[in-house]
Amino acid sequence: MAGNTFGHTFRLTTFGESHGIAIGGVVDGCPAGLALDLSAIQAELDRRRPGSTQLGTSRNEADRVEWLSGTFEGKTLGTPIGFLIRNADAKSGDYDQLKDVYRPGHADKTWEDKFGFRDHRGGGRSSARTTASAVIGGAIARQVLVGSGIRVTAFVSAVGKLKADPAKLDLAAVWNDPVRCPDPATAKAMAALIEEVRAQGDSVGGVVSCIVQGAPAGLGEPVFDKLEADLAKAMLSINAAKGFQIGSGSEASTMRGSEHNKLPQGGILGGISNGEEIHFEVAFKPTATIAKAQLAMDRGGNAVTLEAKGRHDPCVVPRAVPIVEAMACLVLVDHLLRQRSARL
Amino acid sequence: MAGNTFGHTFRLTTFGESHGIAIGGVVDGCPAGLALDLSAIQAELDRRRPGSTQLGTSRNEADRVEWLSGTFEGKTLGTPIGFLIRNADAKSGDYDQLKDVYRPGHADKTWEDKFGFRDHRGGGRSSARTTASAVIGGAIARQVLVGSGIRVTAFVSAVGKLKADPAKLDLAAVWNDPVRCPDPATAKAMAALIEEVRAQGDSVGGVVSCIVQGAPAGLGEPVFDKLEADLAKAMLSINAAKGFQIGSGSEASTMRGSEHNKLPQGGILGGISNGEEIHFEVAFKPTATIAKAQLAMDRGGNAVTLEAKGRHDPCVVPRAVPIVEAMACLVLVDHLLRQRSARL
Amino acid sequence: MAGNTFGHTFRLTTFGESHGIAIGGVVDGCPAGLALDLSAIQAELDRRRPGSTQLGTSRNEADRVEWLSGTFEGKTLGTPIGFLIRNADAKSGDYDQLKDVYRPGHADKTWEDKFGFRDHRGGGRSSARTTASAVIGGAIARQVLVGSGIRVTAFVSAVGKLKADPAKLDLAAVWNDPVRCPDPATAKAMAALIEEVRAQGDSVGGVVSCIVQGAPAGLGEPVFDKLEADLAKAMLSINAAKGFQIGSGSEASTMRGSEHNKLPQGGILGGISNGEEIHFEVAFKPTATIAKAQLAMDRGGNAVTLEAKGRHDPCVVPRAVPIVEAMACLVLVDHLLRQRSARL
Amino acid sequence: MAGNTFGHTFRLTTFGESHGIAIGGVVDGCPAGLALDLSAIQAELDRRRPGSTQLGTSRNEADRVEWLSGTFEGKTLGTPIGFLIRNADAKSGDYDQLKDVYRPGHADKTWEDKFGFRDHRGGGRSSARTTASAVIGGAIARQVLVGSGIRVTAFVSAVGKLKADPAKLDLAAVWNDPVRCPDPATAKAMAALIEEVRAQGDSVGGVVSCIVQGAPAGLGEPVFDKLEADLAKAMLSINAAKGFQIGSGSEASTMRGSEHNKLPQGGILGGISNGEEIHFEVAFKPTATIAKAQLAMDRGGNAVTLEAKGRHDPCVVPRAVPIVEAMACLVLVDHLLRQRSARL
Repeated sequence: MAGNTFGHTFRLTTFGESHGIAIGGVVDGCPAGLALDLSAIQAELDRRRPGSTQLGTSRNEADRVEWLSGTFEGKTLGTPIGFLIRNADAKSGDYDQLKDVYRPGHADKTWEDKFGFRDHRGGGRSSARTTASAVIGGAIARQVLVGSGIRVTAFVSAVGKLKADPAKLDLAAVWNDPVRCPDPATAKAMAALIEEVRAQGDSVGGVVSCIVQGAPAGLGEPVFDKLEADLAKAMLSINAAKGFQIGSGSEASTMRGSEHNKLPQGGILGGISNGEEIHFEVAFKPTATIAKAQLAMDRGGNAVTLEAKGRHDPCVVPRAVPIVEAMACLVLVDHLLRQRSARL
Repeated sequence: MAGNTFGHTFRLTTFGESHGIAIGGVVDGCPAGLALDLSAIQAELDRRRPGSTQLGTSRNEADRVEWLSGTFEGKTLGTPIGFLIRNADAKSGDYDQLKDVYRPGHADKTWEDKFGFRDHRGGGRSSARTTASAVIGGAIARQVLVGSGIRVTAFVSAVGKLKADPAKLDLAAVWNDPVRCPDPATAKAMAALIEEVRAQGDSVGGVVSCIVQGAPAGLGEPVFDKLEADLAKAMLSINAAKGFQIGSGSEASTMRGSEHNKLPQGGILGGISNGEEIHFEVAFKPTATIAKAQLAMDRGGNAVTLEAKGRHDPCVVPRAVPIVEAMACLVLVDHLLRQRSARL
Repeated sequence: MAGNTFGHTFRLTTFGESHGIAIGGVVDGCPAGLALDLSAIQAELDRRRPGSTQLGTSRNEADRVEWLSGTFEGKTLGTPIGFLIRNADAKSGDYDQLKDVYRPGHADKTWEDKFGFRDHRGGGRSSARTTASAVIGGAIARQVLVGSGIRVTAFVSAVGKLKADPAKLDLAAVWNDPVRCPDPATAKAMAALIEEVRAQGDSVGGVVSCIVQGAPAGLGEPVFDKLEADLAKAMLSINAAKGFQIGSGSEASTMRGSEHNKLPQGGILGGISNGEEIHFEVAFKPTATIAKAQLAMDRGGNAVTLEAKGRHDPCVVPRAVPIVEAMACLVLVDHLLRQRSARL
Repeated sequence: MAGNTFGHTFRLTTFGESHGIAIGGVVDGCPAGLALDLSAIQAELDRRRPGSTQLGTSRNEADRVEWLSGTFEGKTLGTPIGFLIRNADAKSGDYDQLKDVYRPGHADKTWEDKFGFRDHRGGGRSSARTTASAVIGGAIARQVLVGSGIRVTAFVSAVGKLKADPAKLDLAAVWNDPVRCPDPATAKAMAALIEEVRAQGDSVGGVVSCIVQGAPAGLGEPVFDKLEADLAKAMLSINAAKGFQIGSGSEASTMRGSEHNKLPQGGILGGISNGEEIHFEVAFKPTATIAKAQLAMDRGGNAVTLEAKGRHDPCVVPRAVPIVEAMACLVLVDHLLRQRSARL
């Protein structure tokens, strides 16, 4: 059972290598009768696109979604929604130097260890490019959620050691800022840090926070499919994610019960939403591919010096924002539909 | 699709309410021919038991596993392994006061919101008691892993603000210490803190860390079922868990790529194990049930004062250690078996 | 992924060997709030029991269900319903002669080929005894169906070459007849045939038909999980089943379209129920275990003569009737719940 | 959970409406390292194509597979294999008359009952055209099977009341004959019957038989996922299939045990392959769409006369042969991979 399907009732299956013919996916289980706004989905995809912010990579793909099935006269049929995006701008030649080298901090060697074989061009399927399919699936999911009054908003809350001030957030303004940080003063400093890091041929990590508003009480399943468990899985499935915290998160581990019980509970208790805002955050490591010369290992086990020539983000978090939203939407819509069977 | 099954190829399904007749489970997909050491499984369960450490609750159940199926002449048949534990020592009367009250920090109200109805005695199925079934499933899984040279060791790395010193850990000594912290000096301070908190009728949070040794390269599935994603889900499915970090975790978000690439990668790259040690940690909130008087809400929406009379742990992490190990074993064995189909 | 779970939204997982400690199961996904009539479930189980009809085997087990979890104050909690039946009357000694012999028409050798190892006593998990767990799961399912006005009635429509007359069926009278054939005249002849066959130390096959009344239009999923496909799988998972026909069945293959289009369509079109009665039938082979001396093969590949000493049915179909009903109920309740997510 | 995915370890997810943009699918779980012969897959697809035999419909689509992902340098990567076929020759105008009419024997009304809405053009997703995706998935599966020495051969064994003579079959010659019946004399009579039926504006049913050679002992899972149960589900998921029989099938129901035990067991015992040839057959109803005038019902419940103008097969079985093979290959490869986890 390979791991390219996400969800139970609302399921996204994705396919595609970074430098193959196309990437894409199939959404199965989207309820019939939804008036699907395809241009809104394209707009969500555009936010993830390389080139969507001047802080990202210079790889610039049109990334137009081709819709293949599942709708008729503008509405979902209840049948699978197939879609693809062609890999138009794949400069595979950039990656020839990587054929026999394992990049530090990348999946090159582990995928080869797993499958005995890999598509070395741009990381193949381990590339962050595959998240474009998740963004499309999530954007479809969001259109179901919106009909139930559920809003999912992610934003950059930290870049390196710079943290947004929770008291100064304007959630409506996330997309106006190139860092996707809705605390304008901190956003400015973050942008400067990212440019500095880029100039050094280096990269820097960061944190994406997410707030779910309007989720009804009762979402999440007992024991193993707790809502926070499925969110954690969804977030750790995003490339470069290293940590997940729900509600009070790690801070909770340092607190007393008498103190913690008075806090908001992050919108979830015992695995099930309680009707309050759901808050979680995801920590991302710095982009592994950097221009700076690094030591790497080649297939023969020899140390080689590597200067990455591909185009890469100096900081992954601005472009991770739509992916965090998408994965959260996929989790929520699945539990929203599963909840329909909870009671007689 | 209710959430009481964990895993794909090696699957654990559990059942049972805290104060019902019994709790238990079914392991399906355990390979045939394993000489199952039942007393070792009972020993693992004993480590989780209330009363297993003097720092835990005073509820003392024998918690003897009754084995129902799946073995013959001491070996697994390849058929489902059914088991149960009777709820012998259930003082349900202790919980009568909770019938119409929603305890702060508990799932009482959310489960009722979900199902329209609940077993209020001891939290019903939202009780941490249900993790006993996970420990049994994990202990079976561990016996498969051991045959492949995989060792899973969890321990308490923090209680409140007290942190174990990573340089002073003796992993072989975890179970000798009542706090389950293998840094003896810090363990002593942790024990004192827990007793202090108990005396105050309060509770405190903590962190459990886990190290997987001997995992071969190649475990984990592309994209959605990354090894760290499945570990994150497993850990966040444990009661009171609030955060998960793999490898460098949240720290990674503050680092530069040139710096981070030189670190060990937590044993996983691109979702797939690389043959190195796998390190992760889980943050737990303080036990929600405390003896101290607290404000709670009753069914009618009125504020009431609550002094918990049930028996509860002042700090959940010592008893969370075997549960973290069990859930990790379940994830690893599932991926170990799934890996058998990765190549022609 | 071992095959001991049936269903998606309403799931039954079973365990247990014929002569082990117990058989049982877990129903996950039964909606909360159902007033579960446990004595009705026991009554359904009693209909399957050896000894329930004088035409069956003489093995006589009390087969009392022990309920373990999932209900509170008489209603389902929405949590897993665990149950078991102890194997009280297991005369395992009867099977010692079979330790090294593979019975003709049985799974003895194939299970050993699969798992490298088997519990030879009474067929272990390949025994028809395991269907008792399915009957319990199906009986729970039926109580959900009844609330939606869906009635599932199976009956014996053929024993050997004797066929019930479709025009003479009184569906309300199935359980009054020991053959479970609601055409009284044919039933009498069938009973005589079964007794004759028993006297000869032989066995005979038969057909169970099933009629579903009150199913709403819209049940069944496109393409792979068509309602008839899931029914076919459910029926062929019953021991000794060799054929499945929906609606006009094999007869359809000999007809013209102009003729066939005028017929009732068996209640399903394009995989989805149309609101009419659903008709299907299941063909069963004669019981493989017979008293008559037969040639068999032993572990060493030698021919041996076998005279079965265990207690066995001369004709499996009367006792298959409740199993066919149970499996049909499991399929229908699963699709009934899945249908809740079909539309916005 | 919509039903557009088939299989557990080797999974096919399909999408697409008959007259939408494209149909296609994703194969997930195909082992890495398989040298995939794409032209062989195209050849299998060509056998299913309308126009592949002069006995079929005159709809003539090129039906070229576009491969999107999952291979590199001619070999499978272990990642999802995405593919599509464009709907080039869709004369949707032919179907305008059907917008408000429910064709007899079709899924028009049931799909509308299910989803509240449908794509009426050519049956939308209920069209047999969707089976092209299954044929592609099955053709990939076959290439795995062939490496394990497993051969799957289906053929037409009956058209209307004409039956092939089992003693005269030349399995190597199936594809040389337009009826796909390897008994030449009967094939000739079948062809004449089909032409006669076509001339009458009518259709006729038939039977496809299938033989699996070289399957090792041990395939199939206990209890619910028996090999014959999964085959039954696979076959009944094919449009127009009405019955499934394994081994002695319905005949078995008329036999004595002493007689039946001496027969070959259809290659499966207790749900698990025994290493012998596996034999099963699938009964198909006559094509529902016929040129002959028929009574139908419109959306308003009025009777209308319908003369189908689309292009349709007078007999579905010749073109069902590659679909039966494909679905059988999907079942077998899934169980072949699942078997890798059966033993320690």
